[in-house]
Amino acid sequence: MKEPPVIPTPDDIERAWMVISDHVRVTPIVHVAAGELGLPTPAVLKLELLQHTGSFKVRGAFHRVLTADIPPAGLIAASGGNHGAAVAHVAGRLGLRAEVFVPSTSPALKRQRIETLGAEVRVIEGFYDDAQRAADERATATGAFKVHPYDSPVVIAGQGTMSMELERQAGPIDTLLAATGGGGFVAGQAAWFADRVRVVSVEPTTSQCLRAALATGEPTDVEVRGLAVDSLGAGRIGDAPWAVVRRYVHDAVVVDDDAIRSAQRAIWDGLRLIAEPGGAAALAALRTGAYVAAPNERVAVAICGSNCDPGTVVG
Amino acid sequence: MKEPPVIPTPDDIERAWMVISDHVRVTPIVHVAAGELGLPTPAVLKLELLQHTGSFKVRGAFHRVLTADIPPAGLIAASGGNHGAAVAHVAGRLGLRAEVFVPSTSPALKRQRIETLGAEVRVIEGFYDDAQRAADERATATGAFKVHPYDSPVVIAGQGTMSMELERQAGPIDTLLAATGGGGFVAGQAAWFADRVRVVSVEPTTSQCLRAALATGEPTDVEVRGLAVDSLGAGRIGDAPWAVVRRYVHDAVVVDDDAIRSAQRAIWDGLRLIAEPGGAAALAALRTGAYVAAPNERVAVAICGSNCDPGTVVG
Repeated sequence: MKEPPVIPTPDDIERAWMVISDHVRVTPIVHVAAGELGLPTPAVLKLELLQHTGSFKVRGAFHRVLTADIPPAGLIAASGGNHGAAVAHVAGRLGLRAEVFVPSTSPALKRQRIETLGAEVRVIEGFYDDAQRAADERATATGAFKVHPYDSPVVIAGQGTMSMELERQAGPIDTLLAATGGGGFVAGQAAWFADRVRVVSVEPTTSQCLRAALATGEPTDVEVRGLAVDSLGAGRIGDAPWAVVRRYVHDAVVVDDDAIRSAQRAIWDGLRLIAEPGGAAALAALRTGAYVAAPNERVAVAICGSNCDPGTVVG
Repeated sequence: MKEPPVIPTPDDIERAWMVISDHVRVTPIVHVAAGELGLPTPAVLKLELLQHTGSFKVRGAFHRVLTADIPPAGLIAASGGNHGAAVAHVAGRLGLRAEVFVPSTSPALKRQRIETLGAEVRVIEGFYDDAQRAADERATATGAFKVHPYDSPVVIAGQGTMSMELERQAGPIDTLLAATGGGGFVAGQAAWFADRVRVVSVEPTTSQCLRAALATGEPTDVEVRGLAVDSLGAGRIGDAPWAVVRRYVHDAVVVDDDAIRSAQRAIWDGLRLIAEPGGAAALAALRTGAYVAAPNERVAVAICGSNCDPGTVVG
């Protein structure tokens, strides 16, 4: 039987922060009152969409790369989106080579951004799984270091540095809402808070791998589609995130695409920020009542990504 | 001879903050390193574009309105842009009527936003001056309270609360770069710092009423046009801002439209924020070397407005 993956401790996350702090941005917070952004309750928003490359992904990627021996062949990753941009950015900052395998189905815009950041982009016919297979084969051939987007305790510890910052900035909170794709992000936050704070996972109704795992008791394949599929559309929660989630994440809610689109619009109208669908999902849960806060509950919401065409939000 | 306008003191600005603090957002700051956003030097950015209605204008407008007796006819203002939205917002929050006179030359989008905020919009053929004249006539007829966008020490004190916040958030700084239209914004910041910090005015090359006043020794009419004309295109610095500026603002630089457009693009690429041309002008001055910081100089930049079509920045 396989060893269960390590669960990062708050100490691990503090150490991760020391490793990456020269490379990541301390993203700001903003307090919003009840009534603003269509919220029934006040909330503190962690503006992680202002992170380098427009998402939290650089935290985990820097931590993974800075704590490994990287071969001359450099880094390799499969992603048409935020993780690809993060790996390209990390490679650029650290003077490493990077190859990013992008599925042909991912938008040309995101592909170009990964190229602009200096990575070599390989377009693979098909979907994410096809790109991942191609990346794995190539890594075997070149010896390049594979950076997985979420299925690694080291990556999870990196993502958790966001909540360490948040707590220093905002003071005590009771609840954090965080969006879930493959589970690395929510696991990082839950590992930091370790039951001191209620961490609520938010998934689109059309991609619920975390809820599927909670329902069956283990990582389970699900179908994915919908508005946020490019950032949250993981077909199965990672083993490493699952080890954290099964222990620390007790609330898992869903939001539909209309709620996500409305939340994106509210974030623009009320706060002049462009959040991508996956970045707006957690706020959508608070707006719709998918998660209902108690009176005086101190709620934080991670706005975790911004990479979309603003015309889809504002137009 | 007319009394010269009062110069708000730091105490006045602290009092203004107490008056408006329940109504305005404490906007976040973010630190950027040398090299980021095309900057030759590190800087702290005050993200005032995340303020209610997407610009600093609500600070001054709330202060003006909350310290006056408002007649039943409510508020009246002339503006096709940020000030109009601010007055509409203030009226909505305080349960007051508001009429906003908008020149027919201002974009339909901004007009709609003012309407959405609940103000009655009157479209006047022509330019800002035509709308202002119509608003003045109407105010005489109805007795409504005129809220001027910048030519008032009370408005200036309200705008100055931004720097009071900034200093609490960022700690000591040496220099603040702030964009100038009619002068109310830069005057507010200069009044707060009162020679403790170098406040640098940044104007577009195509609308330089502050530099014209510095050159001639008094408020002087100038022609205005260019990319940022909707927010910075004042034809003459206000008497009230001028009283502050002549005493406290010793550096006044300019940036051209290309530099503004590039700064908008850099703010999106590097920080995922949509700044309008006027909101990006101050950063443009640091990027281009219109203002050159000394080694170790602690520089802050106000990103003061976001109201534009994101397609003009990202597309």
